[in-house]
Amino acid sequence: MNQQPLFLGIDGGATKCRVVLQDFDGKVLGTGLGGSANPSHGMHTVIDSIQNAVQMAIAKAGLSMDVLTHTIAGAGLAGLHLARYRQQANEWQHPFRRLYLTDDLQIACLGAHGGQDGAVIIAGTGFSATSVTLGDSRVLGGYGFLMGDKCSGSWIGHQALQQVLLATDGLAPPTALEALIADKFDAQGAELADQLIDATPSQYASLAPLVFLAASKGDKPAEDILQQSADFLSRVARRLLESQPPRLSLVGSIAEMLRARLEPEVQSRLTALQYQPEVGAIHFARQMYAKEGQEVNA
Amino acid sequence: MNQQPLFLGIDGGATKCRVVLQDFDGKVLGTGLGGSANPSHGMHTVIDSIQNAVQMAIAKAGLSMDVLTHTIAGAGLAGLHLARYRQQANEWQHPFRRLYLTDDLQIACLGAHGGQDGAVIIAGTGFSATSVTLGDSRVLGGYGFLMGDKCSGSWIGHQALQQVLLATDGLAPPTALEALIADKFDAQGAELADQLIDATPSQYASLAPLVFLAASKGDKPAEDILQQSADFLSRVARRLLESQPPRLSLVGSIAEMLRARLEPEVQSRLTALQYQPEVGAIHFARQMYAKEGQEVNA
Repeated sequence: MNQQPLFLGIDGGATKCRVVLQDFDGKVLGTGLGGSANPSHGMHTVIDSIQNAVQMAIAKAGLSMDVLTHTIAGAGLAGLHLARYRQQANEWQHPFRRLYLTDDLQIACLGAHGGQDGAVIIAGTGFSATSVTLGDSRVLGGYGFLMGDKCSGSWIGHQALQQVLLATDGLAPPTALEALIADKFDAQGAELADQLIDATPSQYASLAPLVFLAASKGDKPAEDILQQSADFLSRVARRLLESQPPRLSLVGSIAEMLRARLEPEVQSRLTALQYQPEVGAIHFARQMYAKEGQEVNA
Repeated sequence: MNQQPLFLGIDGGATKCRVVLQDFDGKVLGTGLGGSANPSHGMHTVIDSIQNAVQMAIAKAGLSMDVLTHTIAGAGLAGLHLARYRQQANEWQHPFRRLYLTDDLQIACLGAHGGQDGAVIIAGTGFSATSVTLGDSRVLGGYGFLMGDKCSGSWIGHQALQQVLLATDGLAPPTALEALIADKFDAQGAELADQLIDATPSQYASLAPLVFLAASKGDKPAEDILQQSADFLSRVARRLLESQPPRLSLVGSIAEMLRARLEPEVQSRLTALQYQPEVGAIHFARQMYAKEGQEVNA
């Protein structure tokens, strides 16, 4: 007897990885969370993070790992728009019946709009954006840490550190960020810079909440950083809206936290997410699996 | 018979390393040039670069390497204000009779003002600045790549790349830098960003001449980057002038190239360099050696 397959959706981001397991009819059986799935830390980190998240989801579903042999998985991973990471990911000896790979942007868009046309802006640890319509498909950003990005958590954290170093030298106005960051790292000036000089995007992104905290208490330099981010995000939104997507959604914690600072016209165009990116990954897996079936039956 | 010592000055910067060899009376016997002396690439790179430069200077002087055993060396190395690099540098089994170590900023200041009080701003691959007066000694910057620095060659190169990536996505105005940088790397967009994501400060600094080129042809985004750098440099100068140093000099190719864009009041306060930093390193070595002699004789 042919067993009905299960479907697994994987959202692999720079700081964390989320998975959701559904039965054939779309009922959620379990969800899981793992660490960084940033391929620039090496594919073994990505695979570890995904495996941890999958184990958690299987356990929550009250199932055993055996089910993976009849599970169809879809994964959207940060960085997978780059050839070198795609190649590495394709070499993974995964435990699933099928694994369909794409980038994090595509699954976010599929999730946000339930598989229909639309545009999304992701701002979490990193930044990227896309608009998919019948006549046009465009991608913005997704270039990596401190690369053409002014609204991600890592950018906000990096800016905060710059403001602190400049303020320490009397080259920028005093800011509440000085004390907050000195406390977090127990260092300042040259020793603080040295601690962070090889920091990962996730480590920088971990400073972003301090910037929101300082801004909420009226710190002008912190508010300026966030307003710059929001202005950039508004510019991105306007650019995406040029291709007239039927919907536009924000994805990621930073995008959500910047929402109130966006231009009013942009705010008025925002539509709620239908599903999270990991559900978009299941959409993607179902589409690819159905297509493969058709090809086999053709 | 006691042989008169020779003196060797070493200026170890992020991109290159310069040495000068003098006889006891201060006559220049030879000069040499080596590669990067950036300790963040490992002390073996620093030592290799210095050794190459020293060999060149000895050869130009028509001497043999034996003279190093009666050579008193002074070295100012980028990064040596940080404890971990100081420790590594102190472990070097060097070939000199004596080696006195300090950071690049101190030797630049000693050279610029012939060993007297004064202030200097270094902007080459990296940025740092100091003012040394009787009543006050302050240091600004020197925090490393993309750390509280808005006027170094590496910062200018990084900004240029950001402008290009944003312009590619229609998020910033078109710039002549797009074609110049695409040509240099034979790549654009995501592939360009990926090529440069782990680039060294020196690699970024190698883009700075393209920014000066584009600005000289009237490219507004390139000119904006340079004016931002110059404004930062003016702010640094004003901060140094607060402690009323008798002299203020610019050191490094980028500082020199930004001179004409500085605030007029700042330009009017600039004084010419008396000597290059490697000669400042000899000043330092002579001071330290004389002090040691006094202590021995005391």
